Amino acid sequence: MDSKTIIAVDAMGGEGSPKKIIDGIKLSLEDSKENFFQIYGDKNLINSLINDKDEINEYSEVFHCDDKVADDDTPLSAAKKNNSTSMWKSIESQKNGSSQISLSAGNTGALLILSRLILNMITGVDKPALAGLWPNKIGMNLVLDLGANIECSEKNLIDFSYMGAALYKALYPDVEPKVALLNVGSEEIKGNEVIKKVFQHIKKTNEKNFDFHGYIEGNHIMDGDANVIITDGFTGNIALKTAEGTANFITTNLKKSLTNNIFGRLSSLLSFYALKDFKNKLDPRKYNGAIFLGLNGPVVKSHGSTDSRGLAYSIKMCSKIVKGNLIKKIKNNLNI
Amino acid sequence: MDSKTIIAVDAMGGEGSPKKIIDGIKLSLEDSKENFFQIYGDKNLINSLINDKDEINEYSEVFHCDDKVADDDTPLSAAKKNNSTSMWKSIESQKNGSSQISLSAGNTGALLILSRLILNMITGVDKPALAGLWPNKIGMNLVLDLGANIECSEKNLIDFSYMGAALYKALYPDVEPKVALLNVGSEEIKGNEVIKKVFQHIKKTNEKNFDFHGYIEGNHIMDGDANVIITDGFTGNIALKTAEGTANFITTNLKKSLTNNIFGRLSSLLSFYALKDFKNKLDPRKYNGAIFLGLNGPVVKSHGSTDSRGLAYSIKMCSKIVKGNLIKKIKNNLNI
Repeated sequence: MDSKTIIAVDAMGGEGSPKKIIDGIKLSLEDSKENFFQIYGDKNLINSLINDKDEINEYSEVFHCDDKVADDDTPLSAAKKNNSTSMWKSIESQKNGSSQISLSAGNTGALLILSRLILNMITGVDKPALAGLWPNKIGMNLVLDLGANIECSEKNLIDFSYMGAALYKALYPDVEPKVALLNVGSEEIKGNEVIKKVFQHIKKTNEKNFDFHGYIEGNHIMDGDANVIITDGFTGNIALKTAEGTANFITTNLKKSLTNNIFGRLSSLLSFYALKDFKNKLDPRKYNGAIFLGLNGPVVKSHGSTDSRGLAYSIKMCSKIVKGNLIKKIKNNLNI
Repeated sequence: MDSKTIIAVDAMGGEGSPKKIIDGIKLSLEDSKENFFQIYGDKNLINSLINDKDEINEYSEVFHCDDKVADDDTPLSAAKKNNSTSMWKSIESQKNGSSQISLSAGNTGALLILSRLILNMITGVDKPALAGLWPNKIGMNLVLDLGANIECSEKNLIDFSYMGAALYKALYPDVEPKVALLNVGSEEIKGNEVIKKVFQHIKKTNEKNFDFHGYIEGNHIMDGDANVIITDGFTGNIALKTAEGTANFITTNLKKSLTNNIFGRLSSLLSFYALKDFKNKLDPRKYNGAIFLGLNGPVVKSHGSTDSRGLAYSIKMCSKIVKGNLIKKIKNNLNI
């Protein structure tokens, strides 16, 4: 067990929990035995989902919690529940050193505030960022902030750049992080005052932490020329959700067109095989898991409505983050 | 000619001009004779593209201009060229009453500044907005601002809401404008201070101009529940371009998957017919044409890289705007 990544899982957050969480852990164990799970939540409910012979018994320990953070809890009401909740305890386990990373599919706002309360910010970092994966033409992008901070200062965006590059390196050790600032044009004079200052600062100070790509426009996010996309939480959240909405719109229309007439129905039958690749590549479960950056410990937020397969993907992400020494890499990049 | 819409066209802006512009006018005449064109630009070049027997002779007049605004002109250098350029003269024609709307595929920044210089803002409106069409599941969205203003005040966004509703009504007289503010969540407490104030103001003051839909998130832009989407120029520009990039990414991947194996190639052959509908609905040329709002006269910007078919669509848009009495509707909505 010593060499395993120890993941503290909040079993009670998100739709269909705790079943989805337990099934997700079981799926991840089919793929790899590299992790050990601390499972936090209602012991009776959780145990009812596990048979004596299940492999999960060997790779996990259940920690009973009387309460949970509900979807309609405010960050304040969640914090008031203190250490009675599965979310709180799954984060706290990192503080006392018994786990290495925390994973929850629960209430995002509460998770952010509890993580900050319990783990504290890395000295010198003012605000945490929410980072997520997004496919590009040749591999994967990391985009941050996706909504933790509605307004960002120059310093916030600079911190996000260095932390994002560190996370990229932890997740993809073989790919060079190429950082770009999301903007309305690619020329130096474009954008608001904050982003122009960030551009100048990084241009002057960044030496070896990452390749600085300058500005990037929305239509080039998926080109693959840059892979770490930096923006404030307002713009990042809207950009990500707009991309989701567009993808959904196109695939819905495509499906309609393909079943509208006899040619379409015939081609649908045939293209079922051809489109497998396509669906597989764009499967949103593969990108499931947003990472909170800037805290003294890694916390991963799974999408509340993903399924057990999506949760298994976020478990894989947790393992990569711990093995990639994320917190150490962030401190190195920030010279802390 | 009296009942025709008189459109002043800058023939020298955008890729492949003036040929693309002249071909676009010819195409639009095949579809309808409702317009008369004032064509501004290099008379020799333009006349070399028109045969004696062409229908366009009957429905247009060419006005020679010695100079043009280049793509690399700054707004300042474009303004210094004064009334020697085709862009300037095509806007100025509205001021002296000889035309009703101006259309250019040239330099956006220059077009915005020249339009403002020549036509002036509507009294009481501080900033012009750039509005564009964007498909939704049941019809069409209007989104503004798409990049004219990097930073927007409470008043700007309120003006944009009323002006956007007026433009929607001018373009689609049979559909009720439903205005929504683009935000990171749908609850009243979400968003930055500016957007929260705009929400409260519109909620209190709007009575009959439009149906106020509240906040909308990026993933719901294309649902069709709202059709006038209001945001600042930074976020709007990034959202639109991100949608373009996502659409491009998906269709490229789809094409690859469909030609990767024998099932795919067979289905491609068959789906050529089935996908016609799909391609047709998503054809970006259909949405070509962004409208400057807030000026004492309507100005339409065609995409610089569209083709003559795209230009013909923006001509149709010009005609609808004039027939829909846009400027009068805006003034009504703003009680001016």
